[in-house]
Amino acid sequence: MFTTQSIRWLQQAQTLLPQLTERLFSPTSLVEPCADSDAFQGWRLQQIAPAAELVNRWMSGGDSVVLDFGEHLVGHLAFSVHLSGTQNAPVRLQFIFGETPAEVAEPFDPYRGNLSRAWLQDEVINLDELPHAMQLPRRYAFRYLRIVRADTEDDFLIQLRDISCHALTAASFELPVQPTPAAFADIDRVSLRTLRNCMQTVFEDGPKRDRRLWLGDLRLMAQTNYLTFRNFALVKRCLYLFAGTAGEDGMVAGSVYERPRPLYGNSLLTFACLFAPTLLDYAQASGDWELARELWPVARRQIDFALQYVQSDQLFIDPGTWWIFFDWCEALDNQASMHACIIYSLRALVVLADNLGLPQEVAALQARIVQLVDAARTLLWDEEQGFFISGVQRQCSWSSQVWMVLAGVLTPAEAAPLLQRMLAQPDLVRPNGPYLYHHVMEALLSVGLVSEAQALLQEYWGGMLARGATTFWEVFNPADDRLSPYANHLVNSYCHAWSSTPSYLMRKYPALIK
Amino acid sequence: MFTTQSIRWLQQAQTLLPQLTERLFSPTSLVEPCADSDAFQGWRLQQIAPAAELVNRWMSGGDSVVLDFGEHLVGHLAFSVHLSGTQNAPVRLQFIFGETPAEVAEPFDPYRGNLSRAWLQDEVINLDELPHAMQLPRRYAFRYLRIVRADTEDDFLIQLRDISCHALTAASFELPVQPTPAAFADIDRVSLRTLRNCMQTVFEDGPKRDRRLWLGDLRLMAQTNYLTFRNFALVKRCLYLFAGTAGEDGMVAGSVYERPRPLYGNSLLTFACLFAPTLLDYAQASGDWELARELWPVARRQIDFALQYVQSDQLFIDPGTWWIFFDWCEALDNQASMHACIIYSLRALVVLADNLGLPQEVAALQARIVQLVDAARTLLWDEEQGFFISGVQRQCSWSSQVWMVLAGVLTPAEAAPLLQRMLAQPDLVRPNGPYLYHHVMEALLSVGLVSEAQALLQEYWGGMLARGATTFWEVFNPADDRLSPYANHLVNSYCHAWSSTPSYLMRKYPALIK
Repeated sequence: MFTTQSIRWLQQAQTLLPQLTERLFSPTSLVEPCADSDAFQGWRLQQIAPAAELVNRWMSGGDSVVLDFGEHLVGHLAFSVHLSGTQNAPVRLQFIFGETPAEVAEPFDPYRGNLSRAWLQDEVINLDELPHAMQLPRRYAFRYLRIVRADTEDDFLIQLRDISCHALTAASFELPVQPTPAAFADIDRVSLRTLRNCMQTVFEDGPKRDRRLWLGDLRLMAQTNYLTFRNFALVKRCLYLFAGTAGEDGMVAGSVYERPRPLYGNSLLTFACLFAPTLLDYAQASGDWELARELWPVARRQIDFALQYVQSDQLFIDPGTWWIFFDWCEALDNQASMHACIIYSLRALVVLADNLGLPQEVAALQARIVQLVDAARTLLWDEEQGFFISGVQRQCSWSSQVWMVLAGVLTPAEAAPLLQRMLAQPDLVRPNGPYLYHHVMEALLSVGLVSEAQALLQEYWGGMLARGATTFWEVFNPADDRLSPYANHLVNSYCHAWSSTPSYLMRKYPALIK
Repeated sequence: MFTTQSIRWLQQAQTLLPQLTERLFSPTSLVEPCADSDAFQGWRLQQIAPAAELVNRWMSGGDSVVLDFGEHLVGHLAFSVHLSGTQNAPVRLQFIFGETPAEVAEPFDPYRGNLSRAWLQDEVINLDELPHAMQLPRRYAFRYLRIVRADTEDDFLIQLRDISCHALTAASFELPVQPTPAAFADIDRVSLRTLRNCMQTVFEDGPKRDRRLWLGDLRLMAQTNYLTFRNFALVKRCLYLFAGTAGEDGMVAGSVYERPRPLYGNSLLTFACLFAPTLLDYAQASGDWELARELWPVARRQIDFALQYVQSDQLFIDPGTWWIFFDWCEALDNQASMHACIIYSLRALVVLADNLGLPQEVAALQARIVQLVDAARTLLWDEEQGFFISGVQRQCSWSSQVWMVLAGVLTPAEAAPLLQRMLAQPDLVRPNGPYLYHHVMEALLSVGLVSEAQALLQEYWGGMLARGATTFWEVFNPADDRLSPYANHLVNSYCHAWSSTPSYLMRKYPALIK
């Protein structure tokens, strides 16, 4: 399936494999989960002792301890197990890693989520001979750790010592936090930590789950990275991975598997359109226009997959055969958002083509933009309601309005009042997750609605902070702590880099933190 | 705690650490547990395909397979896991090792036995990247293996390949089976396999549990080994381990922990008395009287611990403060058996002393034997019933009769009718386990009751065979399949070398297999 060119791209990706930075973290305290209806997902972790007290907890069969590492980490767990008495039977230990208190408070089984049970992070080991020091072979994403002595022997006691997390990142453990007002500095720190923990040998969507390189997620992570950690090589590696794993038809994957070898993950029409904007962002931030030139054919090809569903009236019609993603929201109609996304992609292609000296491409793409903008303004605009509508139900949603603004379908003078109406009107389909909230923020700030953006930042990302987040989440609905696209809040990712964009927005729009 | 001498003995033990022999075994068939009230413990394993069919079983989340390796093995499991489709989540596998069908048919949890849950042999592993080949780090004792794909993903399938057991023994995989009538050859083969699988870096009581060197068990294993595998060095190593770990008072342990360093396990008054007979057996079988000379003081010392409870009337009275073991039988009164065991030990000391040229010791020990035999014959013999009685309840048991015979308290002319009466009388406390049944067999054969021994061999060891044993068990009561000293039949050991003695008895008493 691979061509000479795709193999070369994958080889380039391999040469860009980063050396990860490691730092040792120790637990900070011993905690105990307490049911508390006021706490996030119903669980408060009561601090019961400093972690140094752990060596005084001699454990019998059935005993358990819960450790708090103070912040979300991604890495390998090391520890040693010691003995009081004679070990007359094997020792069985269960390790349960939690990004949230609920994961170390609620049993994983019986499991009823619709993603695999194996994403929940727990391990069972049996040790025949103590003392024993070891490092668990897998990587975990966690702040909390429950260790259960899962055997039933009480003739001898065990002691856990030297527990540490060998944390990893391709970013840096020093977080380049802005010296901003405290309220923003906290959000900035948690955003940066989120990104740091997702930056591994690729930009992972979430280090607990899926640990995978998604193109739509990459675009937001990369934007944040350019203004913070500035690891351009890692973005370049990821762009090569998408280019090198593209299908025979030339379509880049919505997500790429990195190991055991790079592999096309799945098709996602929205994300294919975002390849060009991601490549453009990279070239502009890094100055590396050579990569833009090399991957231009890949970027140019992606728009064809969406354009084939643009009808003679220049309107995108969802054929229903593709995965189109703007938010974890079943009710959302994607037609208008996708129409806007195509325009957004075309605009990026124009800038790329212009910089690469391709005037014929520029002209052709611009002509297409005019047609699609015109169709949006005439066929998707509901004058009476004052909103863009989407689909046969003429649905009004935040997603449609926001993407139309980002796509430049409106003049700035038109866009700001539209977004203000959107914020004020309670009946629109609202966002469920940080990915769409990010685009709302960017739209607001792009038209100067700073105070509205500030309010949203404090309400939404500040809402996660208020609920104890040390990294930002995949999904958050302030009205429903346990919302999950997977029918199980425990399997959600609570360090998800598409929610790390406040650090990008604060730096791109300094007014936001004034 | 260690003396110069004990350290030297432990160093000797270390130099005798055997190089284990390894042989690769593959599963023979795919099986399925079926509830069957006629089968042992209620489970029959239905053969459903040759093991080679395993590669055609592509497994989805929740699927499981059960493999039969055809015979009981002790070793390390190796396997590889392959993939059909794209691995979009970790794979979680559970391995459940069973010596019996019940272990792979019944859930281990919730567990209510009174030995540790950690003795039940199961492991859980999570694999992030397939294909993956590995060997599980721990050693298992099993014939059956259930492998469960314990995740819930059905987007991709897995295949298990190259499953093998790297079996280990300090004996040999070639079993020196006697060319006897088939009925005996089967018992011989299973006895030898039992012993083979217990012969590791020490003589283990059972390779599933406790994996530990017990002195009483060692005596029987060593006797069988001398006439079969003839690994004298391993017995020597074990005798040094007992000598080197003896307590400050000089008492040898009932059991010794081998790892991480040799350690006194626990005190067992009966087994201490059996050190001298075990040392004598070794010297006589190997011709190595040098070891007998070196360890004579240890052997001589052990009898003191029991003799201190012999009263002025020369009768042993159980102080109730020691663990005294003749059978897994709560009802059994141990007084008479222990009194006999002391005599048995004194007789071994006499032969040792005689061979080592210690005439004063011989005279003193013989005088003691006369006193104790006389006390037994006058104070423990119930003329009316025609049985030895034990304890304040004047209990009549097989154990008391058998040990009195083995201790030579009776003349052969007296012993045979006593044992015949014992077999015929239904009200005596009968044996529960193979350890005591072995002593019954030896007593019967020592006085020429061959047909009675043959009947017992076929009924008891033959009974295990008929129930599917490929190694003999720790506990067996033909009337109660699920009998367990630990309140859970799953935690019993089903390869327990104290039941391997038919191979010894067949060779020592050739009439048995005529």
